[in-house]
Amino acid sequence: MRIVVAGGDGFCGWPTALYLSRQGHDVFIVDSLIRRKWDDELRSNSLTPIATLEERVARWKELTGKTIQIYTGDLTHYDFLREVFRQTQPDAFVHFAEQRSAPYSMIDREHAVFTQVNNVVGTLNVLYAIKELAPECHLIKLGTMGEYGTPNIDIEEGYIKIKHKGREDVLPYPKQPGSMYHLSKVHDSHNIMFACKAWGIRATDLNQGIVYGLHTDETLMDPVLVNRLDYDAVFGTALNRFIIQAAIGHDLTVYGKGGQTRGFLNIMDTIRCIEIAAENPADKGEFRVFNQFTEEFSVLELAEKVQKVAAQEGYEARIAHIDNPRVEKEEHYYHAENTKLIDLGLEPHLLTDDVIRGILHAVVDHKDRVIKENVMPNVTWK
Amino acid sequence: MRIVVAGGDGFCGWPTALYLSRQGHDVFIVDSLIRRKWDDELRSNSLTPIATLEERVARWKELTGKTIQIYTGDLTHYDFLREVFRQTQPDAFVHFAEQRSAPYSMIDREHAVFTQVNNVVGTLNVLYAIKELAPECHLIKLGTMGEYGTPNIDIEEGYIKIKHKGREDVLPYPKQPGSMYHLSKVHDSHNIMFACKAWGIRATDLNQGIVYGLHTDETLMDPVLVNRLDYDAVFGTALNRFIIQAAIGHDLTVYGKGGQTRGFLNIMDTIRCIEIAAENPADKGEFRVFNQFTEEFSVLELAEKVQKVAAQEGYEARIAHIDNPRVEKEEHYYHAENTKLIDLGLEPHLLTDDVIRGILHAVVDHKDRVIKENVMPNVTWK
Repeated sequence: MRIVVAGGDGFCGWPTALYLSRQGHDVFIVDSLIRRKWDDELRSNSLTPIATLEERVARWKELTGKTIQIYTGDLTHYDFLREVFRQTQPDAFVHFAEQRSAPYSMIDREHAVFTQVNNVVGTLNVLYAIKELAPECHLIKLGTMGEYGTPNIDIEEGYIKIKHKGREDVLPYPKQPGSMYHLSKVHDSHNIMFACKAWGIRATDLNQGIVYGLHTDETLMDPVLVNRLDYDAVFGTALNRFIIQAAIGHDLTVYGKGGQTRGFLNIMDTIRCIEIAAENPADKGEFRVFNQFTEEFSVLELAEKVQKVAAQEGYEARIAHIDNPRVEKEEHYYHAENTKLIDLGLEPHLLTDDVIRGILHAVVDHKDRVIKENVMPNVTWK
Repeated sequence: MRIVVAGGDGFCGWPTALYLSRQGHDVFIVDSLIRRKWDDELRSNSLTPIATLEERVARWKELTGKTIQIYTGDLTHYDFLREVFRQTQPDAFVHFAEQRSAPYSMIDREHAVFTQVNNVVGTLNVLYAIKELAPECHLIKLGTMGEYGTPNIDIEEGYIKIKHKGREDVLPYPKQPGSMYHLSKVHDSHNIMFACKAWGIRATDLNQGIVYGLHTDETLMDPVLVNRLDYDAVFGTALNRFIIQAAIGHDLTVYGKGGQTRGFLNIMDTIRCIEIAAENPADKGEFRVFNQFTEEFSVLELAEKVQKVAAQEGYEARIAHIDNPRVEKEEHYYHAENTKLIDLGLEPHLLTDDVIRGILHAVVDHKDRVIKENVMPNVTWK
């Protein structure tokens, strides 16, 4: 299969590109490299020292003989994107290429507007490019479980059957996103749903949970292939951040009560979910939604798990309930469905103590790279 | 009350500004005048000859002694908008200032991207300006009934109680918008909902039906105050368009079967609904949704009503079922709630034969201004 991985220089995109390449697909990376510029803007860095994208794909070629072609550019530039479609003629377009940090989107008005315009226009352009140049191409779009918010009923996979005043219909699941970033993903979902209906595009929206871990079999093949790992309060996410905090002797920063419950998955499962979606494309005109996570935890539960494993390894960490910089419920009902990817063959890597230990060992080597002032949150929702 | 009317040069905004001014409010119009440029772009025109905005407010001042101050600029320019807020210190911000044509948004990719960026960024800027400069200001935002699409259950006003697997919650009503324009309004609604929750903003989203008529008591006071009236296939809307088609001896262009059912209201009710919303502001942090229409009709029913009245007046009009340029259901269930504005005091002007006759007489005077090639649709959803 000919597969474009947009955002293929990022935390999820890079290991996905390697994995799909290893499975024998023709992989093309599209990336504007802007994630590296955000590090500069925020005076932050990846915990792991990452090579340039050119170095990465050159080493991959040396090790495996497989070519991953790079297109450096931005999805919001339609002439560029059209040229990518002309040259690659993709069977599947995997779209990771969005600004994906909620705190980044909440820095100020300009960052909010940037996030929404960047994400919405990029995805609109992809839809028009598929319509114009590759109508059979399967769009595999990364959404987020955060689109749903925390309703007091079970979260279904994209749609819900509603009985109301003696009638019934299956309708898009109501969305209650909690940041300007999460809102941009909801906007995308509506836009894609419409394009499927109006133009017969085939699309899968993967509402992904919070991803933890960093290594995959492919990124472990050589230090030049190492994945990026974010620990800062803007781009770092719950579990990975706790493990790094433990490694450097920092308190584990639980926001508020810590009863916030979310769906989580290992990066090893992310790459497999993309493969499953690609191998089982949506029908013409179908807007298909999968909830892409394997387990649910509250933030406090995760902190306690990390605290326990870290102590066994000689790292004593305290749990600190700090003021919640976000506006969100800290105690709430949460249960989301996630059977569709399992039914298609996903075999989850669950979060065991050994997995936490493995991530801890992986990060300890690089702990001197941590810039300490980036660990505590300094972006608030108010 | 100090009320900003953004989009105050347009079909709904202009009569609203006059009406609110006459009720004794301090009214400020913000408008980029872009609606007039779209006429140039499309080689189209208002059926009625409209004066410049400066001429309009000057005549209003002569007739009533009341001042309506004009701010010419674009909501997407934040420095401009901030200055408007600084100078006007509004109690209410009425937001009509969006690209409001579904066909315009479907012309091509650039028009789709323009519509979504223009509408979404304009509204984001208004939200940030309220947060920054006028936190008590009540946002009165024009949405559209088209946000809901045509579900097979009753449409509620913004929210729906859902019972699911033994639990229940009141959630945002699911949205199924049918064009890039309608999508932009759904994006706005989600953004506003979040801003209310995160920042305590008070907002009313008026999901308006299709507006018909042109005159109000105020616009009738002088020919210079006349409202614009759109008859072309891009900006014209169902009922007004049929009446003008009858007046010029054109077939009444029903798209497909004509079973498409929608909510409608008279422009006289639009202006009153805005007043009702302003006089009864949402609470701090409340995202309130009203369905702003008075009656439901199918497109074919409207064509038949117009045909009958036109025949009585000596205008014979045929009904032509033309190929539907849109992707939409032509036969479907439709019932929407609309009690909230009535409960607050709206007394609807219903669509009688006399009302149709009145609009017909108003348009006949100007029928020589019709540019005939603009009457038939030339933008398709495919």
